[in-house]
Amino acid sequence: MAVQATVPVRNADDLSLAYTPGVAKVCSAIAEHPEQVHDYTWKSQVVAVVTDGSAVLGLGDIGPEASLPVMEGKAILFKQFGGVDAVPIALDCRDVDDLVETVARLAPSFGGINLEDISAPRCFEIEDRLKERLDIPVFHDDQHGTAIVTLAALRNAARVSGRQLGELRVVISGAGAAGVAISRILVEAGIGDVVVCDRKGVVSADRTDLTAVKRDLAGFTNKAGRTGSLETALAGADVFIGVSGGTVPEPAVASMAPDSFIFAMANPNPEIHPDVARKYASVVATGRSDYPNQINNVLAFPGVFAGALQVRASEITEGMKIAAAEALAAVVADELSAEKVIPSPFDERVAPAVTSAVAAAARAEGVARR
Amino acid sequence: MAVQATVPVRNADDLSLAYTPGVAKVCSAIAEHPEQVHDYTWKSQVVAVVTDGSAVLGLGDIGPEASLPVMEGKAILFKQFGGVDAVPIALDCRDVDDLVETVARLAPSFGGINLEDISAPRCFEIEDRLKERLDIPVFHDDQHGTAIVTLAALRNAARVSGRQLGELRVVISGAGAAGVAISRILVEAGIGDVVVCDRKGVVSADRTDLTAVKRDLAGFTNKAGRTGSLETALAGADVFIGVSGGTVPEPAVASMAPDSFIFAMANPNPEIHPDVARKYASVVATGRSDYPNQINNVLAFPGVFAGALQVRASEITEGMKIAAAEALAAVVADELSAEKVIPSPFDERVAPAVTSAVAAAARAEGVARR
Repeated sequence: MAVQATVPVRNADDLSLAYTPGVAKVCSAIAEHPEQVHDYTWKSQVVAVVTDGSAVLGLGDIGPEASLPVMEGKAILFKQFGGVDAVPIALDCRDVDDLVETVARLAPSFGGINLEDISAPRCFEIEDRLKERLDIPVFHDDQHGTAIVTLAALRNAARVSGRQLGELRVVISGAGAAGVAISRILVEAGIGDVVVCDRKGVVSADRTDLTAVKRDLAGFTNKAGRTGSLETALAGADVFIGVSGGTVPEPAVASMAPDSFIFAMANPNPEIHPDVARKYASVVATGRSDYPNQINNVLAFPGVFAGALQVRASEITEGMKIAAAEALAAVVADELSAEKVIPSPFDERVAPAVTSAVAAAARAEGVARR
Repeated sequence: MAVQATVPVRNADDLSLAYTPGVAKVCSAIAEHPEQVHDYTWKSQVVAVVTDGSAVLGLGDIGPEASLPVMEGKAILFKQFGGVDAVPIALDCRDVDDLVETVARLAPSFGGINLEDISAPRCFEIEDRLKERLDIPVFHDDQHGTAIVTLAALRNAARVSGRQLGELRVVISGAGAAGVAISRILVEAGIGDVVVCDRKGVVSADRTDLTAVKRDLAGFTNKAGRTGSLETALAGADVFIGVSGGTVPEPAVASMAPDSFIFAMANPNPEIHPDVARKYASVVATGRSDYPNQINNVLAFPGVFAGALQVRASEITEGMKIAAAEALAAVVADELSAEKVIPSPFDERVAPAVTSAVAAAARAEGVARR
């Protein structure tokens, strides 16, 4: 990637505008009217893609330098799909307080913060504290990008099979960044019965080994008070959402309700192989590009930030995320099928649709500043 | 300014290279061989332009947001003149420890750190500590950029008038970032008699009101042990270098040695107006573009960083700065006159000449890593 000047500096006059003495007028204007930083600098069009390199893809804790290629890739996708400028920022620190403090210090230069590949449960606290502290959007893509695209696919899967979201019983395998955020958005979107499983089985309030985040999760999911293993939970379930890795045994898949949906999103090895899933489910999605219905975050994050930046939103609310999911689902409304519950990342309608929906939702929710 | 992708992402294959799953291979390679971060990311071509907004141009302490236009301007000049990508980073913190720590945490993402508009004396400690801590170039442009260009102009002024640097007696008005760095580079370059004045007069070892930085300055300048006012120091001096603002009374200018050099660099109001200076001096330079001999940092910083990044230098040494000044001076060697002791910022020979000289000096000094 590269930085590009969008104005020419051809002669002494240009130079005296782009730099001293002309630039002093712009600085003074911002010093006097702080909100003009959005008009006179690139702040409102640039996002920091921030990581500490602690949970990079499936590679784990490989440190800041080795995580840079992911941040660069993300920055390129931000630009290509959302027209949003993005800068990779891989930080050499691990302590939650230090990360929060460092990102807060960086914030004046950026219009938004995209957190990336930060390990759970640290990622939850870091995002929560930054959201509270900063007046620009903070968005942990591993959580919310995945959640938005999953909700969109589920919305369309329900449409394809003529069902309501509210009547679905969902089992999520994985209580990390993605699992927690998916649980939250599904509950927000009106799915009443969501059960989350970690390696020890159903996350339920009676367990004594739960972290604070999982205790919270047990509080707003699992209304029926289930306990036991993932396999037990799957019996009769309508939806499986895998964000965990690992493998689900075929008999457990077979025990699901008829006409089920299986979103096995672990990469490169889905929790349930699509060929197995198709034997039992009416809609199958994965994280892979070589099967139909790829759940890919690039469908969400460029438009989410483009929309938020467009209206100078002070944050990205749950309502904006749900609006993004609805808009994403609506893109393929006319061409819905079990093989196409979600658009392709290269569908050019996606980013504009998500951008508009997010901007409108920001206005509706009172977090837009223009 | 904008971010630009330098590779296309046109289809699923491109996407799987720029992002998951392909990017994982690059990450793993860097995790295994950390030095490959220079080959596989933009680290080695990108500089952070870092400020805290505490001493912006002549505007003073206007804070991080209001300083952003200067950092953007600088980033554009980095690109246009040196081909170096640069990212504005205006930090919301003031404490020296916090600034050092924050920049150190950011360092994995960048190939170099250009410090900018940080108030003295904090800027000295921050630069020193970062240089000690980081293995990438750290360069406070307000100090060293100005020093390099000043030395180049002085070198050529001496040539024009057939004199040796070693025989010049220099008086510098201003003991801030630029004054200290100019003093140091002139002493390094062999000028024996350098006297620095602050608002209270000559910075001399007998003064009891000196900060640590000025005590140090008194130690390596003022070999003759002068005391008293700027006016006293100017009597018989060969060179006046103004980096202070304020005004020098004409009688003091008239008291300088014949055939003197006056570099009155305060902007927009030179310490000595060029029309007055020309009455007494053989070479006159200012910081302004509307008079001959503009001392402009853009003659130095793009090439200095381009050269340092080219050889992956671990730091920018005094030798590299002097090499930059010599190369800059040499660009106009064949067309020297009192009106042209320094090239124009738009002279296309400048950046390549400085780049090569800095890269060669880095190799010679053993700080190059390729």
